[in-house]
Amino acid sequence: MEKIELNSDERIDEIAASGVKIIQSKEVFSFSIDAILLARFPRLPKQGQIVDLCAGNGAVGLFASHKTKAQIIELELQARLADMAARSIKLNQLATQMSVINDNLNQALTYLSHSSTDLIFCNPPYFKVDHASHLNDSKHYTLARHELATNLDEIFEISKQLLKSNGHLAMVHRPERFFEIVDKMRAHNLQPKWIQFVYPKADTPANILLIDAIKDGKPGGEIFLPPLIVHHDDGTYTDAINEIYYGTH
Amino acid sequence: MEKIELNSDERIDEIAASGVKIIQSKEVFSFSIDAILLARFPRLPKQGQIVDLCAGNGAVGLFASHKTKAQIIELELQARLADMAARSIKLNQLATQMSVINDNLNQALTYLSHSSTDLIFCNPPYFKVDHASHLNDSKHYTLARHELATNLDEIFEISKQLLKSNGHLAMVHRPERFFEIVDKMRAHNLQPKWIQFVYPKADTPANILLIDAIKDGKPGGEIFLPPLIVHHDDGTYTDAINEIYYGTH
Repeated sequence: MEKIELNSDERIDEIAASGVKIIQSKEVFSFSIDAILLARFPRLPKQGQIVDLCAGNGAVGLFASHKTKAQIIELELQARLADMAARSIKLNQLATQMSVINDNLNQALTYLSHSSTDLIFCNPPYFKVDHASHLNDSKHYTLARHELATNLDEIFEISKQLLKSNGHLAMVHRPERFFEIVDKMRAHNLQPKWIQFVYPKADTPANILLIDAIKDGKPGGEIFLPPLIVHHDDGTYTDAINEIYYGTH
Repeated sequence: MEKIELNSDERIDEIAASGVKIIQSKEVFSFSIDAILLARFPRLPKQGQIVDLCAGNGAVGLFASHKTKAQIIELELQARLADMAARSIKLNQLATQMSVINDNLNQALTYLSHSSTDLIFCNPPYFKVDHASHLNDSKHYTLARHELATNLDEIFEISKQLLKSNGHLAMVHRPERFFEIVDKMRAHNLQPKWIQFVYPKADTPANILLIDAIKDGKPGGEIFLPPLIVHHDDGTYTDAINEIYYGTH
């Protein structure tokens, strides 16, 4: 294994089902269940190009890497997180398949060609910025959680430009913004086609939303995939989640 | 019990959880699980006025009647079905609480006042009419299933006029038309707020959609209620459905 330098606040986590190791830091960024659920949500292209917008420490692309031969490009605004992603790529010896761009996603077209991309992943900031927002103290977390440096319209405009016709955008977000997301996707020729809601328990409302939209897709016929329930009543993981985390149940 | 005349093709069904008896006929109309799920979906006003548009044989209003003191008005286009609903109302001795209007729903405002209604139920025809439609042979079923005599725009326009501000429209429909329904509701100041998807089994896509929209409601913050799964893998009903049908599990 290659030697990778770790900062004092960093640790290496491994998700058993993927066999991938990921550099994490509680001080600046740790991936959540949302990234794990997003990585296994869309059907992956066998080859071609995958772009992860708002890549953070690269978790989504790293999880997906062992299931496709496509090139995977991680785009991340924050230098600290982009550097963690780059070191995780080395750590997993994935440098021929994966790379990192450290820039604002609105600059994506200066690095990547129009209509070049088969699949875009996006785990964006979830929260609108308004006067009532309680912005997190850490600048790193604040940028990852609040729409300060980007927003849905920009993400969908860039996605539309990067994607091939019939290419897919797979996004994870919050259910309470579902209609806004659907409206803005469609305004950018991205047709939401497969939707999956994730529920903390069987008797609670959904708290995670997964959407797979098709560029230039035909309207109508949207499909609501089987619900994904995370915990049993006693707090333990359901079989479905154990399968995703550990590959068995 | 009052003496009620039954046609030769008719039978009386009883849903144990409600104690209500309903006149059915396989030849012209039988309520489905959709009506049962719709009746228990919205929070019912304690009093005031409930209107059931596209009432069929009156099943939704009859199921809801024992849980509210509101007046319940069944509006049904087809004379044969409206007559079944009227006889079921007599059969259950509900004539002081319930009544039937036999007319097209676009005539509702000639019977009922503007802004008079606290809750509207609607189990409308699900299928668009186009050249590829295989219309059912029975005229009764055809009108109940295809958008021949009404359509979503008309239903939402009438609903907007009948409802009080902050009144609710509770609708059952098909998930593959969800975005169209949400678009057209919002175009008529009906804000979808609570949504529940119903799945035939835990691992199949949703096949029934329940929506509770609020007239003049604020956009955003939509809630996706816990999933409702109808059958176990072995085909038997789940506890949740047994509870709805029989009141126990």
